[in-house]
Amino acid sequence: MTINTTPPELPRVTTGPLPASSKIHVAGRLHREIRVPMREIALHLSAGEPDLRVYDASGPYTDIEAAIDTAAGLSRPREAWIATRGDTESYEGRRIRPEDNGRDAASGKLRPFPRAHAPRRARGDRAVTQLAYARAGIVTPEMEYVAIRENMGRDAALARARDGESFGAAIPDHVTPEFVREEIARGRAIIPANINHPELEPMIIGRNFLVKINANIGNSAVTSSMEEEVEKMVWAIRWGADTVMDLSTGRDIHDIRDWILRNSPVPIGTVPLYQALEKVGGIAEDLTWEVFRDTLIEQAEQGVDYFTIHAGLRLHHVPLTIDRVTGIVSRGGSIMAKWCLHHHRESFLYEHFEEICEICRRYDVSFSLGDGLRPGSIADANDAAQFAELETLGELTQIAWRHDCQVMIEGPGHVAMHKIKENMDKQLACCDEAPFYTLGPLTTDIAPGYDHITSGIGAAMIGWFGCAMLCYVTPKEHLGLPDRDDVKTGVITYKIAAHAADLAKGHPGAQLRDDALSRARFEFRWEDQFNLALDPDTARSMHDETLPKDAHKTAHFCSMCGPKFCSMRISHDIRSEAQKEGMAKMAEKFREGGALYLPKAEA
Amino acid sequence: MTINTTPPELPRVTTGPLPASSKIHVAGRLHREIRVPMREIALHLSAGEPDLRVYDASGPYTDIEAAIDTAAGLSRPREAWIATRGDTESYEGRRIRPEDNGRDAASGKLRPFPRAHAPRRARGDRAVTQLAYARAGIVTPEMEYVAIRENMGRDAALARARDGESFGAAIPDHVTPEFVREEIARGRAIIPANINHPELEPMIIGRNFLVKINANIGNSAVTSSMEEEVEKMVWAIRWGADTVMDLSTGRDIHDIRDWILRNSPVPIGTVPLYQALEKVGGIAEDLTWEVFRDTLIEQAEQGVDYFTIHAGLRLHHVPLTIDRVTGIVSRGGSIMAKWCLHHHRESFLYEHFEEICEICRRYDVSFSLGDGLRPGSIADANDAAQFAELETLGELTQIAWRHDCQVMIEGPGHVAMHKIKENMDKQLACCDEAPFYTLGPLTTDIAPGYDHITSGIGAAMIGWFGCAMLCYVTPKEHLGLPDRDDVKTGVITYKIAAHAADLAKGHPGAQLRDDALSRARFEFRWEDQFNLALDPDTARSMHDETLPKDAHKTAHFCSMCGPKFCSMRISHDIRSEAQKEGMAKMAEKFREGGALYLPKAEA
Repeated sequence: MTINTTPPELPRVTTGPLPASSKIHVAGRLHREIRVPMREIALHLSAGEPDLRVYDASGPYTDIEAAIDTAAGLSRPREAWIATRGDTESYEGRRIRPEDNGRDAASGKLRPFPRAHAPRRARGDRAVTQLAYARAGIVTPEMEYVAIRENMGRDAALARARDGESFGAAIPDHVTPEFVREEIARGRAIIPANINHPELEPMIIGRNFLVKINANIGNSAVTSSMEEEVEKMVWAIRWGADTVMDLSTGRDIHDIRDWILRNSPVPIGTVPLYQALEKVGGIAEDLTWEVFRDTLIEQAEQGVDYFTIHAGLRLHHVPLTIDRVTGIVSRGGSIMAKWCLHHHRESFLYEHFEEICEICRRYDVSFSLGDGLRPGSIADANDAAQFAELETLGELTQIAWRHDCQVMIEGPGHVAMHKIKENMDKQLACCDEAPFYTLGPLTTDIAPGYDHITSGIGAAMIGWFGCAMLCYVTPKEHLGLPDRDDVKTGVITYKIAAHAADLAKGHPGAQLRDDALSRARFEFRWEDQFNLALDPDTARSMHDETLPKDAHKTAHFCSMCGPKFCSMRISHDIRSEAQKEGMAKMAEKFREGGALYLPKAEA
Repeated sequence: MTINTTPPELPRVTTGPLPASSKIHVAGRLHREIRVPMREIALHLSAGEPDLRVYDASGPYTDIEAAIDTAAGLSRPREAWIATRGDTESYEGRRIRPEDNGRDAASGKLRPFPRAHAPRRARGDRAVTQLAYARAGIVTPEMEYVAIRENMGRDAALARARDGESFGAAIPDHVTPEFVREEIARGRAIIPANINHPELEPMIIGRNFLVKINANIGNSAVTSSMEEEVEKMVWAIRWGADTVMDLSTGRDIHDIRDWILRNSPVPIGTVPLYQALEKVGGIAEDLTWEVFRDTLIEQAEQGVDYFTIHAGLRLHHVPLTIDRVTGIVSRGGSIMAKWCLHHHRESFLYEHFEEICEICRRYDVSFSLGDGLRPGSIADANDAAQFAELETLGELTQIAWRHDCQVMIEGPGHVAMHKIKENMDKQLACCDEAPFYTLGPLTTDIAPGYDHITSGIGAAMIGWFGCAMLCYVTPKEHLGLPDRDDVKTGVITYKIAAHAADLAKGHPGAQLRDDALSRARFEFRWEDQFNLALDPDTARSMHDETLPKDAHKTAHFCSMCGPKFCSMRISHDIRSEAQKEGMAKMAEKFREGGALYLPKAEA
């Protein structure tokens, strides 16, 4: 792992492959131009076991053949795909205003992204969304791309009988481009892919696909910079984040987003309300539909792939939060509640929702309908306020679908284990199976500093029950802004939750990696075991702490027990012997004497 | 938190109370001499909110009034209780032999525990177990002690309607000494309490009580020392470990256990087979019933509270493991399998099980029937080998009960989420509701370095389903021997899992701490929030990283968002205003102007 050297004022990002890994690309069949990236982990020590391909969200940063220049941004494979469709036009676009970077005196000093981006939009009133294409029976390059990505490993796995409980999900043995099209047309999955984000490597979010995770980054008025945030994005996807939300609420908010988007191969989500609030100096009451609408267009032209829109929080919901232990804990939700009460008017997001759809369909910005009334404590889970908003989100889903807009639904929050499934079931019912995207949920309130774990428990469970994407929580939740280490811890924890969910749902290919790692463990192929781990660096360094010598990386005993107490060595000997001679003969031999049990080295 | 200063060759252990906490003691009613420790967390900043009492496993080490001298050991409150029963006698006991500390050349150099312990045993063939007393209708001091401990907080909580899904557990509103007696008599709960461990602060393990956690410590041939292990024990209980297992497999195994037992207020468990194997120089085939029996008596006289006995692994089970991905991963299981195959004989543990019961009943050593065939990988979960052994453990449970011995059952292991409940259901059925005690289970194999998290997910779920005690897994699992930091991480992770399970099961008092912490969070009482956390030190230090100034510890905004974006501040204002005037009037006022929304400082 190396740090590429760009001039100091440019973001320095982490590049280079993960241990024993190389980037391969699989070409399309319907669309020969697409090249789907996968990571291939070499099993150096195995006796003829094939190298393992794993899903790879890390983008060109882990490709030794890719030249990384954060000032130029990533290459733009989707440009040609979009042009070919012939239903969009490039245009001058909105002129950037000073307030786009906030009214903070210190704003505007950041170097803008060097390469100006010429925005595109739909011609006339065309819908250029993946949903519109899917409904028209078109299999786009994006759809074939995610089909190849999701299908990885399944054919190898199908030898084994499928095993799992999917709670009504319909996970196919084989993912075809046509299956992807059907799921999108049905509204059961989305491909967040703004036409102004041509750097994107498409991915899909839906209950019948692999469970995905999102990592939140972004500066605040209190801390952080553009350079840190771009590296956080690259760092988050290196460890497996499938999408990244830029939740910046500080200065230079427009320019930071430009730097992130132009360098991001994963979908970028935002909460446009945050920037709109900055434009009116942080006074919620001064927000207007016009300022918000202008912000949507600004961000759609930049290439934001999905918007969190808190249109489900309505004036009459707010009194339902009065007796809560923790009131309203969603930032967007509290801002809109404040606005509604001050003006004693219905939310402008709700009233103008169809106009928001008109904007999103012209750029293919997906909706992430925000849960402004999610519970912020165990005591508030599954209450009237939360579920009243969820029903409104169901209405809005139908409206967005009428406009050919892709939709997912945000969910809680803080929920004890016995109340998690009700959240999933209600969401599927209210929102007609639109993908669910939850924050955790946290299963207890008593462990600040460890909320990646309190929430990883709930995330694994709701992912199993059918949640399509899990928004990570870092150890700093409730306490501070996550740094680079917190981002990694949050991502790895959520990769664990998502993978545990895939196993329990019975995704055909999911167990291949568990089996490969367990075989390596059983056969004392330490290096293979490290390289197959979600975090090879940490696995290796922990082993080094106890058994530093390289010799021990080939030791035929587990460092936790020492040679005499190594259950694996003993049972490995039992098994290999049994395979040679069968159990009965073996027992004879054992009676003759224990030579078999000498350490391999001495045998 | 201070380190007490004993001479260098003695263990230096962590003492002193946790932040804002003091030790209180609640006296018994049936048994006036018992003093049940609880931790009281002072809420300095709350407006009249009562201080919160929490369960306290940390022993005298967190009591400012206790004088700690590791060379003298802890005081012995149970000595009088046991003497009063008049059914035991003190005797000379077994003479210590050199091999008790292992045949390793470097053994025997450790300073023995200075104060010789005069062992007691039952008079004649009396059973001196809590089970025998419970069946006789006797409520022992130990039973009243745990009733007071478990009942803490429930009366306060009962104002709220109960909420939870307990899957057939029968958790009472109020825990009485008589309820404890009934549960023990029924075999549904145990109080591990060897008559030779008078330093013990009794605790109970059962499905109708709070979910407990165990922390494993112990040296190995590869690493560690007595001083480290004693401090690991003290450190583990400081953070909430309810029992500690000494899994030492290295040198000085007898003396290290003496140091641990004499300084431990929590039950100590062991796997006697490990020491027996050391006595025969690590050659499994050389193990004999006589060596094993002698080891049981040695450890029973020292005061070990529960024994892991792998008597459920039988000769005919071994072939069932041949096609497994990871064979036999239990150390005790693999040693016994090796012995059975070598001699082609039934396990001496199985054949002599009734004699083992005879020993346990004379000292009240509880059984922890070992799962020698637990799965070591996702691929091997819930297989024929695992469940065949579980059925044998059910037979052995009935035999142990006939001998008035207390029993719990050990469980897996590596199990994907959709297979966890089957483990719980089968265990309840096979073992007639004897308490279940599981290792994790780990819900995926792909994250070495993070197995506290892969297993914390499974532990929370199986705890919810009815598992009585959760054996922690540290980040070093599969990689190395846990150090002090790993022990803390493992304990906190498992306290989270156990508490999440208590919430989901609907324990009446469980949510009090969540609610108190969430109120503190909502009211910006940062110090109260830290002090109520499972790990106040980490919570405080993470907040300091982002907002170091003390002033910020009273800040009316969340450090993650900064002042303009603080949802809690906004909704707090909304709520307090609503409480003053009611929602309708408030809306009027909002229209007049937003003065309400000035920061508290300016208001």
